[in-house]
Amino acid sequence: MSEAALPPVRRASRGADELVAARLLHEFNTEYDEPTPAVDALAARLGELLTGEETIVLLAGDAPDGIAVLRLRPALWSAGLECYLAELYVRPERRGQGLGRALLTAAIDTARDAGADHIDLGTSEDDRAARRLYERNGFSNREGRDGPLMYVYEREL
Amino acid sequence: MSEAALPPVRRASRGADELVAARLLHEFNTEYDEPTPAVDALAARLGELLTGEETIVLLAGDAPDGIAVLRLRPALWSAGLECYLAELYVRPERRGQGLGRALLTAAIDTARDAGADHIDLGTSEDDRAARRLYERNGFSNREGRDGPLMYVYEREL
Repeated sequence: MSEAALPPVRRASRGADELVAARLLHEFNTEYDEPTPAVDALAARLGELLTGEETIVLLAGDAPDGIAVLRLRPALWSAGLECYLAELYVRPERRGQGLGRALLTAAIDTARDAGADHIDLGTSEDDRAARRLYERNGFSNREGRDGPLMYVYEREL
Repeated sequence: MSEAALPPVRRASRGADELVAARLLHEFNTEYDEPTPAVDALAARLGELLTGEETIVLLAGDAPDGIAVLRLRPALWSAGLECYLAELYVRPERRGQGLGRALLTAAIDTARDAGADHIDLGTSEDDRAARRLYERNGFSNREGRDGPLMYVYEREL
């Protein structure tokens, strides 16, 4: 797909878009057997998060059929912001049509425009389509780009 | 080392502790050949970050000789906070004396007390001492604890 044909991506608005965004996020976690709050609870949480400036939600396609969630905060090592790409999802029936690439491109541009100088994310070893997308768009999972692998470690509290 | 003998950990105060914290962070990145602002600039940034409630700095040992930096924000998938353990460092000459374990234990307790229900971090494949510490303290770098590995992907903007 040529650059010109990238599907449209727009920024979600508080009030208008929480419900459609919550539905996509709910489908995301349901597809991957992750626990998720109910759609209404997720929509309410999104409404809270979208009140501030540290959360940006992007929606792709006319339906929309894809979503990205960006979290921003002041960086420690620079005077700018750092961005965490917390979620990136495209409905199964719309995959392979450029929505993921459009979302990732928009996420990078949006983070940069917001004042971030760094973006990171966590993804699974076996999510090969996502990893290919990230690697084609300048992301690396190796320190200094050709050093050792970088792992996410996590635990519940 | 027994639990009772864990070195002391205290929370850094704005005004009193930025400089000592900045020195430790500067040594951290210098040791690992990562770029770092000058100590004064780092101290100023820490002063800004410590003004808010989303950044917590922990200091270990009497000197102090170890530091942890926690970043908190409202979670998307729960009504609580999520914590990112952004930095964890112990001076080389004080390693193997429980400072890392004391810092990590305090980080977990501090994040939980602040209202977080999840904590994560990124670390390098070849940092075996750090990985062992995390794994002994309940962290996993596998989805669902025994699934595929989880990678950090990052890029500059």
